[in-house]
Amino acid sequence: MSGEFSFIARHFRPLAGRESLDLRDDCALISCPPGQELAISTDTMVENVHFLPDDPPETLGRKLLRCNLSDIAAMGAAPYAYTLNVTIPRGPRHNDTWFSAFVAGLSEDQAQYGVTLLGGDTTSTSGPLVLSATVFGRLSKGTALRRNGAKAGDSLWVTGTIGDAALGLLTLQGKISDPSGFLADRYRLPQPRTGLALNGIVHAAMDISDGLIQDCQHIAEESEVAIDLQTEAVPASPAAKTLGPAWLEQRLTGGDDYELLLACPPEHEHSLARICREAGVPVTRIGSLRSGRGVRALNRDGQVIQFLKGGWQHF
Amino acid sequence: MSGEFSFIARHFRPLAGRESLDLRDDCALISCPPGQELAISTDTMVENVHFLPDDPPETLGRKLLRCNLSDIAAMGAAPYAYTLNVTIPRGPRHNDTWFSAFVAGLSEDQAQYGVTLLGGDTTSTSGPLVLSATVFGRLSKGTALRRNGAKAGDSLWVTGTIGDAALGLLTLQGKISDPSGFLADRYRLPQPRTGLALNGIVHAAMDISDGLIQDCQHIAEESEVAIDLQTEAVPASPAAKTLGPAWLEQRLTGGDDYELLLACPPEHEHSLARICREAGVPVTRIGSLRSGRGVRALNRDGQVIQFLKGGWQHF
Repeated sequence: MSGEFSFIARHFRPLAGRESLDLRDDCALISCPPGQELAISTDTMVENVHFLPDDPPETLGRKLLRCNLSDIAAMGAAPYAYTLNVTIPRGPRHNDTWFSAFVAGLSEDQAQYGVTLLGGDTTSTSGPLVLSATVFGRLSKGTALRRNGAKAGDSLWVTGTIGDAALGLLTLQGKISDPSGFLADRYRLPQPRTGLALNGIVHAAMDISDGLIQDCQHIAEESEVAIDLQTEAVPASPAAKTLGPAWLEQRLTGGDDYELLLACPPEHEHSLARICREAGVPVTRIGSLRSGRGVRALNRDGQVIQFLKGGWQHF
Repeated sequence: MSGEFSFIARHFRPLAGRESLDLRDDCALISCPPGQELAISTDTMVENVHFLPDDPPETLGRKLLRCNLSDIAAMGAAPYAYTLNVTIPRGPRHNDTWFSAFVAGLSEDQAQYGVTLLGGDTTSTSGPLVLSATVFGRLSKGTALRRNGAKAGDSLWVTGTIGDAALGLLTLQGKISDPSGFLADRYRLPQPRTGLALNGIVHAAMDISDGLIQDCQHIAEESEVAIDLQTEAVPASPAAKTLGPAWLEQRLTGGDDYELLLACPPEHEHSLARICREAGVPVTRIGSLRSGRGVRALNRDGQVIQFLKGGWQHF
């Protein structure tokens, strides 16, 4: 057995599910139960852009998986499986030890989220590490949560706390201090909000990956509504609170939170709160939707705040 | 609309099918007709490894699509859709003109193979261009062509001609001459053998991407049979013949042909020949399968030929 094939057998075959055909054939084969459909999300992460060279290898595949699982969650689908493309810098750093750690992280998340590897490709590069994953979820046909279903009169909600990942990146860059390590963890390992049965409850959903303000703009544009965001209501973690109000813009425009942004009609607010409470997921009302266009970020006094930066641009 | 989103709208939305939700949501949504399953293949191509910096941008996405479509064809599935991840070197080279050409090539192949874009991701890198695609095909449940079904007594066949792509790479590297440009085209633009209804006809199939000898080894290993390859029967293109017999090893061990390698039982040889003839695809018998293990490359006199190089190693 030659180098590449034994490498795949050693590291990746243990991750592979039945549908992968043991990574021994030209394709994986999956089926979709009657009445269901597949939600598909794909993301790429590049060293020095989406993660740092000294991030632990255990976290890299997990972060990639979780970013995609967050998209799956945003559609109201249940995690199912994924493919993985790894483009490895030549040189000694990405050796068997590195891959063992990388795969151990993936293995942990496979167990946590109930997904298996379908297939993949490994290639080499003279440049930085590039990781791509395509993740599949399953859901009942016609029940997908979309970005374009929000309506005037809905209220706006987020899960979890907002801005931790952006602050976490700043701590890793040495620009701010967080002795707890909480913020850095939030940057390295998002918590996709899978498992919330919000289909039929909320009018619109998306995950917050480009920054809260910009993602509000996406909902507003796709649903053709206006959003009033009550900035003081946007939940902050204790670690973010410690840093004080000067970081508000960073928190609201920074990316990588991977929390859910939801538009909920008044009659379902109680159900939304109950479902999240039962799942142990904090959910907070942060604004309201009305006729019109655009997003207004309002302070405690109802005045519009202007931010310099709209959100994260990928390139 | 900010930079990334208008970029996607401008270049990629025209490629997107209905299931992509117009590239406006967190996921694509696909369904699978009752009685069918999905074949999934994913591949990555890296500049300077899988293509050359001065390859025309029109050909890059097409080559990536076609390599994957070749895997889809090898399972006996019909092309359906794909996702695309583009990691772009920073700098002026990959500008709007470059992307227009890149997308024009994809658009042409979408029409030719009947696939549409489901979704994707664009990221930037300090390294070379990296392209990944995950391609979906559909087939009737339980009819997939596998690598592990070959049996002693089957004959071994290939579509098309073998070794052109490896020779084409050498012409592009200036190591050999081919004034016709045929060999370089074969390197740049493989012809995936989609549309052959070989399910139920052949016992095993795979596409030749790592080199004929190595791919014979895959069939032999997975099917637990021995293969005798009649090297003089392996079809050569006129351009390859012009170069003479000195290039035999290169032709049999070089990668990137993307022809089909088939194991056919005696009773279906006529059907195989007829199906290929009707599709206008040349098919040639190049060997036989017997009990045992391993692959023997035999010359005209039935003597075993030893090659120095087993086939293409990806990294």
